Amino acid sequence: MNRKILILADGQLGVFSAKTATSVIRYRPKEVVAVLDREYAGRNTHQILGVPAAIPIVSTVEAGLAFGPDTLLIGIAPPGGQLPQEWRDTLRACLTAGLTILSGLHTFLDEDPELAALARKHGARIVDLRRPPEDQPIAAMLARGTRALRVLTVGTDCNVGKMVAALELTATAKERGIDARFLATGQTGMLIAGGGVTLDRIPGDFMAGHVEKLVVEQGDAELAVVEGQGSLVHPAYSSVTVALLHGALPDAMILVHHAGRETVRFQDVKIPPLPEMIRRYEDALAPLHPSKVVGIAINPYGAHPEEAADTIAWAEKDTGLPAVDVVANGAGRLLDAVLRVRRG
Amino acid sequence: MNRKILILADGQLGVFSAKTATSVIRYRPKEVVAVLDREYAGRNTHQILGVPAAIPIVSTVEAGLAFGPDTLLIGIAPPGGQLPQEWRDTLRACLTAGLTILSGLHTFLDEDPELAALARKHGARIVDLRRPPEDQPIAAMLARGTRALRVLTVGTDCNVGKMVAALELTATAKERGIDARFLATGQTGMLIAGGGVTLDRIPGDFMAGHVEKLVVEQGDAELAVVEGQGSLVHPAYSSVTVALLHGALPDAMILVHHAGRETVRFQDVKIPPLPEMIRRYEDALAPLHPSKVVGIAINPYGAHPEEAADTIAWAEKDTGLPAVDVVANGAGRLLDAVLRVRRG
Repeated sequence: MNRKILILADGQLGVFSAKTATSVIRYRPKEVVAVLDREYAGRNTHQILGVPAAIPIVSTVEAGLAFGPDTLLIGIAPPGGQLPQEWRDTLRACLTAGLTILSGLHTFLDEDPELAALARKHGARIVDLRRPPEDQPIAAMLARGTRALRVLTVGTDCNVGKMVAALELTATAKERGIDARFLATGQTGMLIAGGGVTLDRIPGDFMAGHVEKLVVEQGDAELAVVEGQGSLVHPAYSSVTVALLHGALPDAMILVHHAGRETVRFQDVKIPPLPEMIRRYEDALAPLHPSKVVGIAINPYGAHPEEAADTIAWAEKDTGLPAVDVVANGAGRLLDAVLRVRRG
Repeated sequence: MNRKILILADGQLGVFSAKTATSVIRYRPKEVVAVLDREYAGRNTHQILGVPAAIPIVSTVEAGLAFGPDTLLIGIAPPGGQLPQEWRDTLRACLTAGLTILSGLHTFLDEDPELAALARKHGARIVDLRRPPEDQPIAAMLARGTRALRVLTVGTDCNVGKMVAALELTATAKERGIDARFLATGQTGMLIAGGGVTLDRIPGDFMAGHVEKLVVEQGDAELAVVEGQGSLVHPAYSSVTVALLHGALPDAMILVHHAGRETVRFQDVKIPPLPEMIRRYEDALAPLHPSKVVGIAINPYGAHPEEAADTIAWAEKDTGLPAVDVVANGAGRLLDAVLRVRRG
């Protein structure tokens, strides 16, 4: 891909508040020409996000267009995915300039009469990453037949770093010469991978079927690393998590946890201890396919370095499994644990 | 409702093969004028299904129209919900005669150009029961605030009788003067209740939210009986089941099992023993809301009477809970068990 992306972050730039923006900047830095964010304008992405790439941050759409983008990416994912009214001016300006709009919102922008008309008028495209595929597959445990060893990242909560863990695990495997593939199941993962499916927008009956289809299609690899979503204990997103478990039927799982997080995001639910979470994931799969959590990825973002190190040490002690910060230390130990899994 | 329904069963009439047809005939017999089914034409619904109502079965759409219907109900739910090509002639004839088409298929008939044009030409309506609502609620554990005691029917498998158990429980409660409401979560339940939501067609992120919304809207009742869907151990439908658990946050559950069924429908999964299924449902709720399975509904359909009686006796012995055939014996004992639940 040779896109030149302007990212709309609108005052929310941050690792958790602008997950899509941050991830694309981290994993596709050469494709991003500028970030539009009034709050942090004048600084760069290295300073704000701590990522290697120092991409300029600008305050106006005109300043962003001066960098010659061909694509505007909406890099924020508000709960529910609605289109904030104040973004319209930006979208209008970009469509008028002929840019492609990439949107991961639940509200489909190509159904917005004004924006669709503007796109037609200026020969611009609107791509809704969350638009579900037309087909309606019913899961039937076909994932069991893949050549690939199947790995799924699972979480103690949503928004803890399951995509990053999956990407790092895939990258480490590739460095070792393994034919490993990252299977994207969310809009950000799709932007990075250039394929996949946005699971959370698919109707309930077909979610597991679409996971299965994706896994079977990529099943000729040696290692299929499936991006996890949500958490078994998140009231709103647990159904997406279960569809991943039962559609992908992973041979191994990596549990991802955010250091210091004690309750589920925006919900009145205490996150159970790691050993209980491990039991829950293994138990949910047991009647369909035997599988083990083989390692822990600890996301240290925002924690004091000492707290992060303590969390990692405690995780190893409590679970008897390797626990690592994959961004700082790589996913080598997790990959070792995955490759020790042999299917019965 | 004063509908006059012709039901399309197309050679598949049977308690399990034509769940929608059978249920509407059982619970709304006065609304059904005839059934269209070549296989069983000339007989009646009492003879074929064992239901009280003896509604005539006809072999041609012309013979069905002679009964003066105002509505054609598609009473079969094929896997995946696709429209079989051979039904087109029937739908064309009914639309031409001005009938409303009620469809629970996943394929939306009002998007079919030929059928939509015919409907417009003849002033007929096409109602797709599975069309999801426009709003996109995110579950937030609001169900906990209802006045109503919340009950959910859960299953060892899909298609075991969760809707029937919920309907019978509601009816028994009403007979005792309790303000009980049946909350429909599937297209057949919606046809019977005249409201509700077809959960399995809603995008993953909003399934639990729509359950929650339905429960909150009806939360001023004394007893809210939520129709369950799928099973925690069904690979394709488990995500819908989890959305119900985490959206409705039931105070009590009724576990429904089909006597003699040993494997999950059309899947290579052995159904776990009842005590294990009870543990699974209670465990899936535990981090969010304490809840117990308080009774078992055994669906005896197709089993020898002796096998059914044995299953019921074994269920009581294995679980220590009341187990009943709600159609034959009523839901009184299950209601007693539900009403013993007091929230902490």
